Amino acid sequence: MDKLIEAIERTGNPSVVGLDPKPALIPAPVLDAARADNPESRSLALAAAYRAFNKAVVDAVTDIVPAVKPQIAMYEALGPAGVQLYCDTCAYAASRGLYVLGDVKRGDIGSTAAQYAAHLGGVPDVPEWDDGFGSAPEDPWHEDAITVNPYLGSDGILPFVDVAQAADKDVFVLVRTSNPSSSQLQTVATAAGDATVGELVAQLAEEWGKGTIGSHGYSRVGAVVGATHPEEGAALRRLMPHTFFLVPGYGAQGGTAADVAHMFDEHGSGAIVNSSRGIIAAWKKDPQASRFDADAFESPRSMAQSEAIHDDAAEALDLVGTAAARAAQAMRDDIASALANR
Amino acid sequence: MDKLIEAIERTGNPSVVGLDPKPALIPAPVLDAARADNPESRSLALAAAYRAFNKAVVDAVTDIVPAVKPQIAMYEALGPAGVQLYCDTCAYAASRGLYVLGDVKRGDIGSTAAQYAAHLGGVPDVPEWDDGFGSAPEDPWHEDAITVNPYLGSDGILPFVDVAQAADKDVFVLVRTSNPSSSQLQTVATAAGDATVGELVAQLAEEWGKGTIGSHGYSRVGAVVGATHPEEGAALRRLMPHTFFLVPGYGAQGGTAADVAHMFDEHGSGAIVNSSRGIIAAWKKDPQASRFDADAFESPRSMAQSEAIHDDAAEALDLVGTAAARAAQAMRDDIASALANR
Repeated sequence: MDKLIEAIERTGNPSVVGLDPKPALIPAPVLDAARADNPESRSLALAAAYRAFNKAVVDAVTDIVPAVKPQIAMYEALGPAGVQLYCDTCAYAASRGLYVLGDVKRGDIGSTAAQYAAHLGGVPDVPEWDDGFGSAPEDPWHEDAITVNPYLGSDGILPFVDVAQAADKDVFVLVRTSNPSSSQLQTVATAAGDATVGELVAQLAEEWGKGTIGSHGYSRVGAVVGATHPEEGAALRRLMPHTFFLVPGYGAQGGTAADVAHMFDEHGSGAIVNSSRGIIAAWKKDPQASRFDADAFESPRSMAQSEAIHDDAAEALDLVGTAAARAAQAMRDDIASALANR
Repeated sequence: MDKLIEAIERTGNPSVVGLDPKPALIPAPVLDAARADNPESRSLALAAAYRAFNKAVVDAVTDIVPAVKPQIAMYEALGPAGVQLYCDTCAYAASRGLYVLGDVKRGDIGSTAAQYAAHLGGVPDVPEWDDGFGSAPEDPWHEDAITVNPYLGSDGILPFVDVAQAADKDVFVLVRTSNPSSSQLQTVATAAGDATVGELVAQLAEEWGKGTIGSHGYSRVGAVVGATHPEEGAALRRLMPHTFFLVPGYGAQGGTAADVAHMFDEHGSGAIVNSSRGIIAAWKKDPQASRFDADAFESPRSMAQSEAIHDDAAEALDLVGTAAARAAQAMRDDIASALANR
């Protein structure tokens, strides 16, 4: 986890921007320009719109945040073209020096988990192909870390940890998620001791990370702990002293900076807070946003208006970037203030 | 679940072939031919090998089994090229009339799960794009059903159920997986009542399916119950009377036909048994297999030998298909016999 912790120290900002594009979050001219350029396919047009949108956000936040967290579901929704864009987004963010946390929530039985672990370490090897493809292994995914699901137990997780250790990468295990129905399983009390199911997973996560503890005291196995459960967060922090937290649920889902402050350790380290809509859709709250509403145009505009559409798209993307940067700075300051006042 | 149940009745075979390609399961000449055709990239070469291998298996088993289950981890291991192949494999199997069960084990918070649900129902809509892309919605994934992970509770599952209901598709919830460490969470006793965590999920799965029960008495929400837990399987069968079972773990993982027989209902319906390696790698147990060992060749062979490599590959794929068909028939007969004798 050292790479992430050092990126947080460098930027003075323990927050991560969720790159979760959806049609409703993209300015209409950006969608229309992508459609003009890709008239043959809805998924290719959306992929082009998401690509331009992600680039605007990444360029705007590069010097403000240490990390981005693309949520692969938004990309899988477009099929293979979306998955290609997911990988390209990860590669672009990595090229800008950002730590890339792939929110993929994978998990399967051991032999299958070992294949998923290619997310952290390249394509499977064929022993007799030890020459001819060049010496540098391919890394199609470009992620520094991924999220994983614990329901299958150790043999669904340890293959990821092994690859992470070998490749200087990390995994984040779902422990206590931010969504309302997460309590259906995660807070159920177990018969042995007084641990809930989520606390049992917390103990396992701490155990899975043993042997991968870095120079800052945290292992390569992090935990996802939602900002929407502040009182549990403090208890989980004590239960997992070597486990770095990824904290979703700040902002749009209802978590506040005061709520997340308890997820950090006594030195103000130990956690990174995610915001997606609060950053990438910040442009919608800007007074200028109404210029780019779908209603502002004859819609959809025709190919003949292509040049005007592209000009509008470029202006809208400027606004996306400016608003994202401003929101990312405000979030950084909000968390810093809550940490100072706890 | 009617579509799957009727496909099982039509073939008289409650088993599904796992399409889980890995380098070690592919004959050396097939790998070498793909490499000769794709000298620029290891992942493209493996994707080409997997493509030829999958086609041989699908063509061979089409009239014997009702369904195939590609495991997406094997494809994601190759990056975007692998995901494209996954979709192409699903589309090809569907075009041969097979029910396609995508083993993707997805699951996330509600708004994100709704995006993953595109696996069952096409790319996201943009309201103002209501013309221009033609009337038929795109379906990039070509799956009839997918597996989903229950750790996030109802709001991680119900978006899939909604889309499944609208699109005549199904979902299978992980309840009791076949792997050794699954007992770390799934058999933990909860404090309320005497249900284990897995039994709690079983009750939820039965609940999630309510309102989608088809003409054969089973809902659109199935359950994954491993063949490696036969005694629990019978209890889970009683606990989930309207829940169809997908049973992994037969064969290579140790489950026998007698073990899986308890997962079926009293009419011999209610379950489908998966085998992956037992079918797709059956060729390795054929006396002819040694002809296609990597050791049998100067390896890797050069481009100059391309024609000979391609001839060998075609012969090896014939063996893959013949052996897969024979193994699929043997599995069908094995299960039928166990069902008759229980």
